[in-house]
Amino acid sequence: MRKIGIAEVEDIALGAALLGAGGGGDPYIGKLVAMGALKECGPVTLLDPQEVPDDALVVPIAMMGAPTILGEKAIGGGEYKTLYDTVSQFFGKPIYAFMPIEAGGVNSMLPIAAAARLGLPLVDVDGMGRAFPELQMVTFTIGGVSATPMALTDEKGNSAIFRTITNKWTEELARAVTMSCGGSVSVSLYPMEGAVMKKYGVCGIVTRSQKLGAAIRQVKQVQGMTPEEAFLSFTEGFKLFKGKICDVLRETRGAFNFGKVVLEGIQEDKGRSAFVEFQNENLTCTVEGRIVATTPDLICLVDVETFVPVPTDALKYGKRVMAVGLKCFPLWRSPEGIALVGPRYFGCDTDYIPLEERCKGGKD
Amino acid sequence: MRKIGIAEVEDIALGAALLGAGGGGDPYIGKLVAMGALKECGPVTLLDPQEVPDDALVVPIAMMGAPTILGEKAIGGGEYKTLYDTVSQFFGKPIYAFMPIEAGGVNSMLPIAAAARLGLPLVDVDGMGRAFPELQMVTFTIGGVSATPMALTDEKGNSAIFRTITNKWTEELARAVTMSCGGSVSVSLYPMEGAVMKKYGVCGIVTRSQKLGAAIRQVKQVQGMTPEEAFLSFTEGFKLFKGKICDVLRETRGAFNFGKVVLEGIQEDKGRSAFVEFQNENLTCTVEGRIVATTPDLICLVDVETFVPVPTDALKYGKRVMAVGLKCFPLWRSPEGIALVGPRYFGCDTDYIPLEERCKGGKD
Repeated sequence: MRKIGIAEVEDIALGAALLGAGGGGDPYIGKLVAMGALKECGPVTLLDPQEVPDDALVVPIAMMGAPTILGEKAIGGGEYKTLYDTVSQFFGKPIYAFMPIEAGGVNSMLPIAAAARLGLPLVDVDGMGRAFPELQMVTFTIGGVSATPMALTDEKGNSAIFRTITNKWTEELARAVTMSCGGSVSVSLYPMEGAVMKKYGVCGIVTRSQKLGAAIRQVKQVQGMTPEEAFLSFTEGFKLFKGKICDVLRETRGAFNFGKVVLEGIQEDKGRSAFVEFQNENLTCTVEGRIVATTPDLICLVDVETFVPVPTDALKYGKRVMAVGLKCFPLWRSPEGIALVGPRYFGCDTDYIPLEERCKGGKD
Repeated sequence: MRKIGIAEVEDIALGAALLGAGGGGDPYIGKLVAMGALKECGPVTLLDPQEVPDDALVVPIAMMGAPTILGEKAIGGGEYKTLYDTVSQFFGKPIYAFMPIEAGGVNSMLPIAAAARLGLPLVDVDGMGRAFPELQMVTFTIGGVSATPMALTDEKGNSAIFRTITNKWTEELARAVTMSCGGSVSVSLYPMEGAVMKKYGVCGIVTRSQKLGAAIRQVKQVQGMTPEEAFLSFTEGFKLFKGKICDVLRETRGAFNFGKVVLEGIQEDKGRSAFVEFQNENLTCTVEGRIVATTPDLICLVDVETFVPVPTDALKYGKRVMAVGLKCFPLWRSPEGIALVGPRYFGCDTDYIPLEERCKGGKD
């Protein structure tokens, strides 16, 4: 158990933005929401998963929808109270703690805001170890946990609670309501007992985000390594490509951000070209026509100078970025994991091959 | 208090199909669902609204979506139990009785099936005195009653419960989920106390439907009148036009049936032409370029020989029909009523003028 305040939130947001793999929304907006709540209500208690009783009700908090829309619509103040009331009324018992469902610029931050505003602790766990675009894409789905009862509320005060026969149906129905509410809403889903959270969750993810954030912040102060070496060493990242963004294609469709960013090689990659395709998160990275990384491994674009992650929302012409691959949480590499979040689910016509194998062959 | 069984259901379905004003779905499907439940579970007790205690929980049951889709998807057996459980869990008290929310081929029947299956009484009341396509279009909206908490379930077992800031938002969100569930679902909405039901409801509508149905069935046995005279006399209907259907334009969009039926005059209307526009229900009737009736007054098409109502789903080339206007429930003619269900709401560029005034001028 420890406290997290404004300083910790800076690093958590930065690290989670890297784990967001291009998605998870603008860390600046997420940070503002969390910091506003911390300033008003004081620091939040972060619990180690093992500190949570087995029968305690733990509820993930998140936003659902297109992060680009969240930037326009923002978040009111009353959503978390509405979610708390809806869920605790449904179960007839109080919520013991909140938790994030994914790492990312926004969804790593909102549970902190919720915990601060309602005076509840936050658990150091999530259900992805990264970000994914659809709500059934969590380790808890592999563990057979239901996404429902799922509560949803918008900033205007409309709310809904869903119970569905599969988590894919939850996605269908909640997505439809998200669209009708203007494309972004606050949700609580996968309400679960402490025992389940400990068994299937990605434990320690908040702390990992914070450490990654601190490392990125200090990357230029490491002795005996270039900043790039320090970054790749600390993140255990695979360098995929370095280039200047020469085109960004975007489409907001079905409350998702779809698109493709095209890179023109710089430095050691001069004369080569690459592209990254995304659906909220980066899905594939292709260098000189060869796929070098795919979901569920993390494909992250970071600034070549500062190593600050660049989410898909912030991609623009002329920016110089390094594409980096990070290994995903091991459970995602199981057949069930690949069925849920592998490249074919997203319509990419390639089998999943682990990042480290794809990168083994060298540059071609 | 009286019992309704198979024989009563025949007449209620026929009469409600007339009050459905072209909408409310195929009475044959509705009847099958109600009769199946009555055969299995026995007759249903019909309560006069005054017999319901003021603090009893009364819950309308309906289907939402396009009636043409219901014809394909049908209704399972478990929906009413799911709705009962969801609503009574929400309120923490049992449901005292079900009621219909509208008169129409399907929605007059489903509450009977629900009451039979769960052994609950049905109240002789609804919230329209006819059928309308959107769920905020009930007298209870004028009375300031909230449509929510609204429960929704599909035949697969998915369910949702909504709480919204306005009844228009309920329509938005529930419609989105209805579409995702395949275009037709079972719902309970406007849950209310007995006192509210008595104050704003259209009392006696089930009995009125039954009497209208019996009158249509016996229209050829009335002494001293032609069947047409008997029909118009008993329904207090205004004859608008008699014609042969020479074109039907249809579009299923946003879970609604939109369209237009074109009539070529027959008998006394020979040489003239007319058309009726609809959105689930008939919205306007135009004869020789002059609007002769608009929503919220009822525009009904009936077979010229049998006087059986022809819902918009059953319109087809060559059928001979009489267009009849019926006066709507008085509350619909208030400014609040016109704002909610008047012609301009549906995009028809005309003010509301009461049916009897539009018809006063004679044929032109």
